[in-house]
Amino acid sequence: MIRILFLMFIALPGSYGRYEPNWKSLDTRPLPQWYDEAKLGIFIHWGVFSVPSYSSEWFWSQWANNNEEVVSYMKENYPPNFTYQEFAKDFKAEFFNASEWAEIFQQSGARYIVLTSKHHEGYTLWPSKYSYSWNSVDIGPRRDIVGELAEAVRRRNITFGLYHSLFEWFHPIYLSDKASNWTKKEFVTNKIIPEMRELIQTYEPAVLWSDGDWEAPDSYWNSTEFLAWLYNDSPVKDSIVTNDRWGIDIPCKHGDFFSCQDRYNPGTLQLHKWENAMTIDKQSWGFRRNAKLSDYYSTLELISQLVSTVSCGGNLLMNVGPTKEGILAPIFQQRLKELGDWLVINGEAIYGSKPWSTQNDSLDSSVWYTASKDDNVVYAISLHWPSENILTLGSTQDIFRYTDTVIYLLGNEEDGVLNWSVEDNGAVAIEFPTKSITKSDGAYVLKIVVNGSISVGQI
Amino acid sequence: MIRILFLMFIALPGSYGRYEPNWKSLDTRPLPQWYDEAKLGIFIHWGVFSVPSYSSEWFWSQWANNNEEVVSYMKENYPPNFTYQEFAKDFKAEFFNASEWAEIFQQSGARYIVLTSKHHEGYTLWPSKYSYSWNSVDIGPRRDIVGELAEAVRRRNITFGLYHSLFEWFHPIYLSDKASNWTKKEFVTNKIIPEMRELIQTYEPAVLWSDGDWEAPDSYWNSTEFLAWLYNDSPVKDSIVTNDRWGIDIPCKHGDFFSCQDRYNPGTLQLHKWENAMTIDKQSWGFRRNAKLSDYYSTLELISQLVSTVSCGGNLLMNVGPTKEGILAPIFQQRLKELGDWLVINGEAIYGSKPWSTQNDSLDSSVWYTASKDDNVVYAISLHWPSENILTLGSTQDIFRYTDTVIYLLGNEEDGVLNWSVEDNGAVAIEFPTKSITKSDGAYVLKIVVNGSISVGQI
Amino acid sequence: MIRILFLMFIALPGSYGRYEPNWKSLDTRPLPQWYDEAKLGIFIHWGVFSVPSYSSEWFWSQWANNNEEVVSYMKENYPPNFTYQEFAKDFKAEFFNASEWAEIFQQSGARYIVLTSKHHEGYTLWPSKYSYSWNSVDIGPRRDIVGELAEAVRRRNITFGLYHSLFEWFHPIYLSDKASNWTKKEFVTNKIIPEMRELIQTYEPAVLWSDGDWEAPDSYWNSTEFLAWLYNDSPVKDSIVTNDRWGIDIPCKHGDFFSCQDRYNPGTLQLHKWENAMTIDKQSWGFRRNAKLSDYYSTLELISQLVSTVSCGGNLLMNVGPTKEGILAPIFQQRLKELGDWLVINGEAIYGSKPWSTQNDSLDSSVWYTASKDDNVVYAISLHWPSENILTLGSTQDIFRYTDTVIYLLGNEEDGVLNWSVEDNGAVAIEFPTKSITKSDGAYVLKIVVNGSISVGQI
Amino acid sequence: MIRILFLMFIALPGSYGRYEPNWKSLDTRPLPQWYDEAKLGIFIHWGVFSVPSYSSEWFWSQWANNNEEVVSYMKENYPPNFTYQEFAKDFKAEFFNASEWAEIFQQSGARYIVLTSKHHEGYTLWPSKYSYSWNSVDIGPRRDIVGELAEAVRRRNITFGLYHSLFEWFHPIYLSDKASNWTKKEFVTNKIIPEMRELIQTYEPAVLWSDGDWEAPDSYWNSTEFLAWLYNDSPVKDSIVTNDRWGIDIPCKHGDFFSCQDRYNPGTLQLHKWENAMTIDKQSWGFRRNAKLSDYYSTLELISQLVSTVSCGGNLLMNVGPTKEGILAPIFQQRLKELGDWLVINGEAIYGSKPWSTQNDSLDSSVWYTASKDDNVVYAISLHWPSENILTLGSTQDIFRYTDTVIYLLGNEEDGVLNWSVEDNGAVAIEFPTKSITKSDGAYVLKIVVNGSISVGQI
Repeated sequence: MIRILFLMFIALPGSYGRYEPNWKSLDTRPLPQWYDEAKLGIFIHWGVFSVPSYSSEWFWSQWANNNEEVVSYMKENYPPNFTYQEFAKDFKAEFFNASEWAEIFQQSGARYIVLTSKHHEGYTLWPSKYSYSWNSVDIGPRRDIVGELAEAVRRRNITFGLYHSLFEWFHPIYLSDKASNWTKKEFVTNKIIPEMRELIQTYEPAVLWSDGDWEAPDSYWNSTEFLAWLYNDSPVKDSIVTNDRWGIDIPCKHGDFFSCQDRYNPGTLQLHKWENAMTIDKQSWGFRRNAKLSDYYSTLELISQLVSTVSCGGNLLMNVGPTKEGILAPIFQQRLKELGDWLVINGEAIYGSKPWSTQNDSLDSSVWYTASKDDNVVYAISLHWPSENILTLGSTQDIFRYTDTVIYLLGNEEDGVLNWSVEDNGAVAIEFPTKSITKSDGAYVLKIVVNGSISVGQI
Repeated sequence: MIRILFLMFIALPGSYGRYEPNWKSLDTRPLPQWYDEAKLGIFIHWGVFSVPSYSSEWFWSQWANNNEEVVSYMKENYPPNFTYQEFAKDFKAEFFNASEWAEIFQQSGARYIVLTSKHHEGYTLWPSKYSYSWNSVDIGPRRDIVGELAEAVRRRNITFGLYHSLFEWFHPIYLSDKASNWTKKEFVTNKIIPEMRELIQTYEPAVLWSDGDWEAPDSYWNSTEFLAWLYNDSPVKDSIVTNDRWGIDIPCKHGDFFSCQDRYNPGTLQLHKWENAMTIDKQSWGFRRNAKLSDYYSTLELISQLVSTVSCGGNLLMNVGPTKEGILAPIFQQRLKELGDWLVINGEAIYGSKPWSTQNDSLDSSVWYTASKDDNVVYAISLHWPSENILTLGSTQDIFRYTDTVIYLLGNEEDGVLNWSVEDNGAVAIEFPTKSITKSDGAYVLKIVVNGSISVGQI
Repeated sequence: MIRILFLMFIALPGSYGRYEPNWKSLDTRPLPQWYDEAKLGIFIHWGVFSVPSYSSEWFWSQWANNNEEVVSYMKENYPPNFTYQEFAKDFKAEFFNASEWAEIFQQSGARYIVLTSKHHEGYTLWPSKYSYSWNSVDIGPRRDIVGELAEAVRRRNITFGLYHSLFEWFHPIYLSDKASNWTKKEFVTNKIIPEMRELIQTYEPAVLWSDGDWEAPDSYWNSTEFLAWLYNDSPVKDSIVTNDRWGIDIPCKHGDFFSCQDRYNPGTLQLHKWENAMTIDKQSWGFRRNAKLSDYYSTLELISQLVSTVSCGGNLLMNVGPTKEGILAPIFQQRLKELGDWLVINGEAIYGSKPWSTQNDSLDSSVWYTASKDDNVVYAISLHWPSENILTLGSTQDIFRYTDTVIYLLGNEEDGVLNWSVEDNGAVAIEFPTKSITKSDGAYVLKIVVNGSISVGQI
Repeated sequence: MIRILFLMFIALPGSYGRYEPNWKSLDTRPLPQWYDEAKLGIFIHWGVFSVPSYSSEWFWSQWANNNEEVVSYMKENYPPNFTYQEFAKDFKAEFFNASEWAEIFQQSGARYIVLTSKHHEGYTLWPSKYSYSWNSVDIGPRRDIVGELAEAVRRRNITFGLYHSLFEWFHPIYLSDKASNWTKKEFVTNKIIPEMRELIQTYEPAVLWSDGDWEAPDSYWNSTEFLAWLYNDSPVKDSIVTNDRWGIDIPCKHGDFFSCQDRYNPGTLQLHKWENAMTIDKQSWGFRRNAKLSDYYSTLELISQLVSTVSCGGNLLMNVGPTKEGILAPIFQQRLKELGDWLVINGEAIYGSKPWSTQNDSLDSSVWYTASKDDNVVYAISLHWPSENILTLGSTQDIFRYTDTVIYLLGNEEDGVLNWSVEDNGAVAIEFPTKSITKSDGAYVLKIVVNGSISVGQI
């Protein structure tokens, strides 16, 4: 496994040093290292849908498709001839302060962010030439959201990435191409490709998170041509990573990392770098004004997602939906802060890690493993405090053959070494200190330092 | 003169029956006859500018260019981050009833109308594929204004025409082409030409009134190519008339009719068919909520414009600006109705007419002439009731050589023949009946029937 | 008749020079002379109803009472939970310029104006202490409309008056008094009387045009007590005139002048001073955005109202409805200007006049009479130009007994004396000059100067 | 101490069983028992200020008084002629669901709520007759907020109370009374007293939380007359409790309970029942859209407030500010839920309690005491987990004289008895179990059961 990943990382471009516009060639590109090491990103869904901020960011589509809840919301609160575009006027972002956001993101422990530069509604958060009168400078905030946020997060040494939707639900040129059964490509040629180039060249994102690909083949989207340009000639050719949503049948097959479907979290080690894109609000990526407390994942659930994802070789892209005013609601701030607090104590098991031979303990399924890159440390991350203070593990026999193996509890205020013993069935019992002594809350990391290599014989 | 016009009217397309995309060939196209006979059209300026309906339809440009009045209006009435696009939401057209408009136009005596399908702001009054989210179906009325009006006026046997602006003040792709010194043509290729074709093919207007051409050469606009398509292959190739605003140096040189500059009214006979496009509100083409009574031309001034224009071979295109609600303000209705009432009585001097050898009387400058097409009648149109009921004309000696020349006053309730006498200096004195006997008001038409041709020896 | 009027004018207050709070005493008050001489006033209906400006100023009541047209308008254009009060926000009056209004009123020939300080909706056009948050300073224009207009019209020497509605459709305290069958008077005591006193003391109007009285007896309204204060102690006790809408069964019985019902125009001479309150828009007192040209009375119809009203001893109070922006629509301006132009020529038959013994000619019903106060002149006002230029009158025999009676046509540019002759049946035939010689339009005034008193033997 | 409180609770009304309108008589009224036992209430600040939801619920006053932050917010986001009243239109409460609120309140452990029926802005959350067009039915939600919430919380067996502001910042009648140096009482007579009676009679609240009294003496407000009515004749005469804000110099002197100043928390036992009214958002009682996470008290800080308040004989009234949409933001829900979770475990130390002889431990200031009403239990509430699991107390010597005193830790999953020992200096050392065994979080309650009375000799 380790070897396979290694090869992928150093794979070289095709002959003559340039990628060709086909998947075979594009697939040879090595994953830029920053991405694998980042582990945690923040996804931001923001747009005109943040004005109704009701139901979900698919509000418009739901409305058009007679979703009962949305239709009834519109009927009760708006005049009959109201159009979705009229919401844009109220997307004022009057409290949007990119620098405050960046500080919140930094404190969460995230190493990169991905902002919806344009969602399926087509409204762009930058003054795109290709979206006249339907962008954040022409109507609504009167500001270049993408530009402001890029600048602010970079000042905090967070990597800046952008989400971009290929299709637009109601763009008439797209619909006309679609009606032609993709024989016409006016939308791709005159709108999408120039728009993506403009985006890349203006803001130089390190992530291009493509979406909205699923109705058409990659040949319609000119995906391989675009990616060849992106990898060969764009200003971000060395740092950029993209996901896999580039046309029918492409997801989970091609791309720098696989995002597969939303909330993808396979639970087992994957051969290819992947990402678990999920959202703190269980029901929506965009902000919902009427979300209840129970609609948000708890911090412990988020830590659990992070731990299981990283253990299996993925990154976690955790989504927040800002309000139309430009605020990250305090409930989001709280989740981010608590996650960040946890990472301050336990981050070494995450950021510096690689997957270990085992992911999930065979006896205690709430324990996940990672390993240090130098092969000297295994991290066992327990999502609960063990009953009677004794944690019993089933997957670590090999590393406890060495009698000088030493175990620490991260965040232990007294920094002591833990007692352990091997039981008859080979299980290892580890004695935790009294709980009041740890600074960590909810999930607890055992740092198991092995004299001799942890990788010998295992992988 | 008559011969020249005649030749122009029957000129044929270039070899092989098709026009070539150059002015030499295009200029050979004869003017469709309907247009010369229509004489009076109604111009309609309607768009997002009808929401502020302040200063003029150039509101946005004036604002951007720091016009003091407009800047101050915005400062006093809107929040600082308000954008022009946000006005669109209030362009509701909730009272727009195309059928009522058509009835009003019909009663005015107009034979065609020209609607601003898209003004320099770029907002389209039809659901254009090329103006997503910036058109009358996506934001504002939620209606296809162009389509509704086309249908309604045709039901009243009024010819339907469309105004279209080539440039858009703030379209970023246009501005980018402009910045390239017109070496790039992205705006024309991807937006303007497809948009004009969509317009022509969907609504089949009989007038395409082009505007907004003046910053770029016709080669940038692809004008001759487009017109060749329009004249050769479009669904309106036989009926369409266009004006002359197709690029730098084209106005007053090429085009089915010349509109030259706004309010063009040369006062002398022109060799080429022309049009006097003027507006009832002296200061604005778009509606102004704060216009004063004195800002509107009186009915007599409008009759005067019509008479002098037709006398010199032009058509009058008289503009009204509807409100954002879709109403033709009663003051416009009143002007149109009074003009229509005048035409019911005096229309034969206008619609059936051609220019006469003389346009403006040599002794009485408020008298204008037209002639019947069969050369039997000269119409002398006096813009005042003659003092002491005696009108003395200086330009009609020739037709009063025939002693059986007979003069009528149109609208004379008693239908009598007027007395006339030739004075020593050759001037002809015509005795009007008592004023209370005429149904006409403000301008009075003498119908001079000549036994023998009026054209003999004169032209 | 003349004598009766005379007595009324000099009637004195009750004993000790003060009016008592009962109709018998109040009825003895003489009419302030300015009012009888003013003849023409402008009524102005302006308020929150000018925001929907649809159907009529009764919009709110119609809505609440399920008027189909209004309910459907609201359904089609507003969200379901919209309340009438929310309209107030859009009553911006951003173009309201009291000085421009005053100029327009002056040019109309009106000698007084009456503004709706508060209509049945309860919204006050001044910052009333008794209408907190429901007045023109707290919400909407943020201006003291009453104050600004009072100042401006007085600068033009026009008398300033105020309309005031006693009841308010939906005021809960009023409704509670009503539910008590008028046994409670909380609304009158705490709201209406203090409000009227505030109004009188702050703005000192010369007309208090009361309305909205009809559901309750004058005893509920404290009408006689209030009027006694108004006539005895208020700052306008000498100049003020009030109408007759002060409770059930009071209209047409008590009050300085009688307004009886709306559009009251009895067509015969009245014993008591009266007023014809009517409106240029035939259907509404408030502005209607969707009014058609045919919904407005023509200038000639307005002159006809003025002439018949004054002839019968009334004043004409002609209503205009400004827009929510504060504009008098040009169609109103035009009517006012044309009426004013007519009065410049013919005003002496109106302003200086008193009723004559006959009002409407016995032979020609389109001729109305007035007389000069010095009894030397009778004015015959013909609402048409006589056919064949001969006007035949049936009611003037007496004054044509004097052979030196002289007749002029007002506005005759040549100032000549007209020929007349008495026919066998006693009818008098008057020969008009040629029509082109008069400056007047639509209605024509004969000034008949009698040597000897016109009143001898007639009344 | 106990005796004093006891007397207060059974004190009887003045002679003849009725309270007289003076403080001496009113002060004899016993506190209704429900209030002392409730301990925890939720305060709700909701009104038009929830629309800007910026700075604080004093927004309007701050704006009028040129608060820099608010002035600048208005300048940047609203047109210059915007008035505060125009905010009301956007107070839509479209997601307000009283039943959901009631459920959230119930889960918080609160036993009563107090809603701002009318704050200083004057806008009433019920359709008051005395606030026409400035209440929640006439403009904004179109709903009777007070009525809906009363019904819903009562269904959950929570006691319903109302806040009411006597003064209104900008009510012109109030300002006029003030300008008269309180010699006029128009505002009190015609508005405030009828309004409070309407409120009491319609909704029968069990708390009337008066505020806005401070500019005028109680004689201006008719406070004693009103309270005499409230205690003698109102429908809530038996259950109602009021606070002390009834005029200059009244707070902390008269009233059923003392609220003294905002956030009053004296830290020592008070002779008279009192309430600590404080707010979860440290800076504002109304919702602030731009509040940061750090602006909210943590759950532990709230528990600390509750504990110290109850220990000293007070109730805690903890404030939340709903959004204009009618939502309790998730951050509030989270605080309330965590507090409620803590009370499920530890509630017996709060609800059933009375103050003990000591409030704050002499050795460990983070320990507060309460006692059971039957004098058998003392509760020691520690706001931290003791270091090394040993808590040393200085104020409990007396109760540990009995060797059969037994100590429990509330929420101990194993229900064991704790070891304790008396040290030489008389301090008592109590040994806690391992921390992982308790369900409580942040604050820990020792239940000390004494054989023999805890009160003997102590108070």
